[in-house]
Amino acid sequence: MARVYVSLKKSVADPQGQTIKKALNDIGYEGVAEVRVGKFFDISYDGDLENLERVLKEISEKVLANPVIEEFVIEESA
Amino acid sequence: MARVYVSLKKSVADPQGQTIKKALNDIGYEGVAEVRVGKFFDISYDGDLENLERVLKEISEKVLANPVIEEFVIEESA
Repeated sequence: MARVYVSLKKSVADPQGQTIKKALNDIGYEGVAEVRVGKFFDISYDGDLENLERVLKEISEKVLANPVIEEFVIEESA
Repeated sequence: MARVYVSLKKSVADPQGQTIKKALNDIGYEGVAEVRVGKFFDISYDGDLENLERVLKEISEKVLANPVIEEFVIEESA
Protein backbone atom coordinates (compact mmCIF):
# COMPACT_ATOMS: atom_id res chain seq x y z
CA MET A 1 0.00 0.00 0.00
CA ALA A 2 1.15 3.49 -0.82
CA ARG A 3 -0.38 6.90 -0.43
CA VAL A 4 0.23 9.69 -2.91
CA TYR A 5 -0.53 13.24 -1.79
CA VAL A 6 -1.28 15.74 -4.54
CA SER A 7 -1.54 19.45 -3.84
CA LEU A 8 -1.45 22.66 -5.78
CA LYS A 9 1.96 24.27 -5.99
CA LYS A 10 2.36 27.04 -3.43
CA SER A 11 2.40 29.62 -6.21
CA VAL A 12 -0.99 28.51 -7.55
CA ALA A 13 -4.16 30.07 -6.16
CA ASP A 14 -6.60 27.68 -4.49
CA PRO A 15 -10.11 29.11 -4.90
CA GLN A 16 -11.72 26.06 -3.26
CA GLY A 17 -9.58 26.57 -0.18
CA GLN A 18 -10.33 30.30 -0.18
CA THR A 19 -14.05 29.58 -0.28
CA ILE A 20 -13.81 27.18 2.64
CA LYS A 21 -11.70 29.68 4.59
CA LYS A 22 -14.30 32.39 4.03
CA ALA A 23 -17.15 30.06 5.00
CA LEU A 24 -15.37 29.13 8.23
CA ASN A 25 -14.73 32.80 9.05
CA ASP A 26 -18.37 33.61 8.32
CA ILE A 27 -19.74 30.98 10.71
CA GLY A 28 -17.52 32.20 13.52
CA TYR A 29 -14.13 30.57 13.11
CA GLU A 30 -12.38 33.86 12.61
CA GLY A 31 -8.99 32.50 13.59
CA VAL A 32 -8.74 30.43 10.42
CA ALA A 33 -6.18 32.27 8.29
CA GLU A 34 -5.82 30.00 5.28
CA VAL A 35 -7.16 26.73 3.92
CA ARG A 36 -5.55 24.81 1.10
CA VAL A 37 -7.08 21.68 -0.34
CA GLY A 38 -5.32 18.60 -1.65
CA LYS A 39 -6.12 15.06 -2.68
CA PHE A 40 -4.64 11.77 -1.69
CA PHE A 41 -4.75 8.38 -3.34
CA ASP A 42 -4.44 5.13 -1.41
CA ILE A 43 -3.03 2.60 -3.83
CA SER A 44 -3.06 -1.13 -3.12
CA TYR A 45 -1.03 -3.37 -5.40
CA ASP A 46 -0.37 -7.05 -5.67
CA GLY A 47 3.04 -8.67 -5.57
CA ASP A 48 3.52 -8.29 -9.32
CA LEU A 49 4.08 -4.56 -9.11
CA GLU A 50 7.82 -4.55 -9.69
CA ASN A 51 10.00 -1.46 -9.46
CA LEU A 52 7.50 -0.05 -7.04
CA GLU A 53 9.20 3.25 -6.47
CA ARG A 54 9.57 4.00 -10.17
CA VAL A 55 6.01 2.89 -10.92
CA LEU A 56 4.52 5.07 -8.21
CA LYS A 57 6.46 8.06 -9.53
CA GLU A 58 5.26 7.38 -13.08
CA ILE A 59 1.66 6.95 -11.99
CA SER A 60 1.81 10.17 -10.01
CA GLU A 61 3.31 12.18 -12.86
CA LYS A 62 1.13 10.73 -15.60
CA VAL A 63 -2.24 10.15 -13.98
CA LEU A 64 -2.66 11.44 -10.44
CA ALA A 65 -1.10 14.89 -10.63
CA ASN A 66 -0.86 17.65 -13.19
CA PRO A 67 2.82 18.58 -12.95
CA VAL A 68 2.18 22.02 -14.39
CA ILE A 69 0.24 23.21 -11.37
CA GLU A 70 0.49 20.39 -8.84
CA GLU A 71 3.15 18.67 -6.79
CA PHE A 72 3.05 15.23 -5.22
CA VAL A 73 4.56 13.31 -2.35
CA ILE A 74 4.70 9.52 -2.29
CA GLU A 75 4.50 7.69 1.03
CA GLU A 76 5.04 3.94 1.00
CA SER A 77 3.72 1.90 3.88
CA ALA A 78 3.66 -1.76 4.78
CA MET B 1 -1.13 24.52 11.09
CA ALA B 2 -3.23 21.37 11.03
CA ARG B 3 -4.11 18.89 8.34
CA VAL B 4 -7.49 17.19 8.18
CA TYR B 5 -7.76 14.04 6.08
CA VAL B 6 -11.22 13.17 4.80
CA SER B 7 -11.95 9.84 3.14
CA LEU B 8 -14.96 7.77 2.29
CA LYS B 9 -15.87 5.18 4.88
CA LYS B 10 -14.56 1.75 3.96
CA SER B 11 -18.11 0.54 3.38
CA VAL B 12 -18.82 3.25 0.80
CA ALA B 13 -18.02 2.61 -2.86
CA ASP B 14 -15.49 4.95 -4.45
CA PRO B 15 -16.28 5.22 -8.17
CA GLN B 16 -13.57 7.83 -8.74
CA GLY B 17 -10.96 5.48 -7.29
CA GLN B 18 -12.34 2.57 -9.33
CA THR B 19 -12.05 4.62 -12.50
CA ILE B 20 -8.44 5.53 -11.76
CA LYS B 21 -7.66 1.90 -10.93
CA LYS B 22 -9.11 0.77 -14.26
CA ALA B 23 -7.23 3.49 -16.16
CA LEU B 24 -3.97 2.44 -14.55
CA ASN B 25 -4.59 -1.22 -15.37
CA ASP B 26 -5.46 -0.29 -18.95
CA ILE B 27 -2.22 1.60 -19.54
CA GLY B 28 -0.12 -1.26 -18.26
CA TYR B 29 -0.02 -1.00 -14.47
CA GLU B 30 -1.78 -4.30 -13.97
CA GLY B 31 -0.45 -4.76 -10.46
CA VAL B 32 -2.62 -1.95 -9.12
CA ALA B 33 -5.37 -3.71 -7.17
CA GLU B 34 -7.32 -0.83 -5.67
CA VAL B 35 -7.30 2.95 -5.57
CA ARG B 36 -9.26 5.01 -3.08
CA VAL B 37 -9.38 8.76 -3.19
CA GLY B 38 -9.47 11.20 -0.29
CA LYS B 39 -9.09 14.90 0.35
CA PHE B 40 -6.97 16.80 2.79
CA PHE B 41 -7.22 20.32 4.11
CA ASP B 42 -4.22 22.29 5.32
CA ILE B 43 -5.53 24.79 7.82
CA SER B 44 -3.48 27.74 9.06
CA TYR B 45 -4.81 29.70 11.99
CA ASP B 46 -3.70 32.67 13.98
CA GLY B 47 -3.13 32.73 17.70
CA ASP B 48 -6.73 33.61 18.42
CA LEU B 49 -7.98 30.14 17.56
CA GLU B 50 -8.64 28.93 21.08
CA ASN B 51 -9.66 25.39 21.97
CA LEU B 52 -7.85 24.27 18.89
CA GLU B 53 -8.64 20.60 19.22
CA ARG B 54 -12.37 21.17 19.69
CA VAL B 55 -12.52 23.71 16.90
CA LEU B 56 -10.77 21.43 14.43
CA LYS B 57 -13.18 18.63 15.29
CA GLU B 58 -16.19 20.93 14.83
CA ILE B 59 -14.89 22.25 11.52
CA SER B 60 -14.27 18.73 10.28
CA GLU B 61 -17.71 17.50 11.27
CA LYS B 62 -19.64 20.54 10.09
CA VAL B 63 -17.80 21.71 7.00
CA LEU B 64 -15.01 19.49 5.73
CA ALA B 65 -16.53 16.03 5.97
CA ASN B 66 -19.95 14.51 5.48
CA PRO B 67 -20.20 12.24 8.53
CA VAL B 68 -22.82 10.06 6.86
CA ILE B 69 -20.40 8.69 4.30
CA GLU B 70 -17.00 10.08 5.25
CA GLU B 71 -14.55 9.81 8.11
CA PHE B 72 -11.80 12.21 9.06
CA VAL B 73 -8.46 12.27 10.83
CA ILE B 74 -6.97 15.43 12.32
CA GLU B 75 -3.22 15.87 12.43
CA GLU B 76 -1.84 18.87 14.27
CA SER B 77 1.64 20.06 13.45
CA ALA B 78 3.87 22.88 14.59
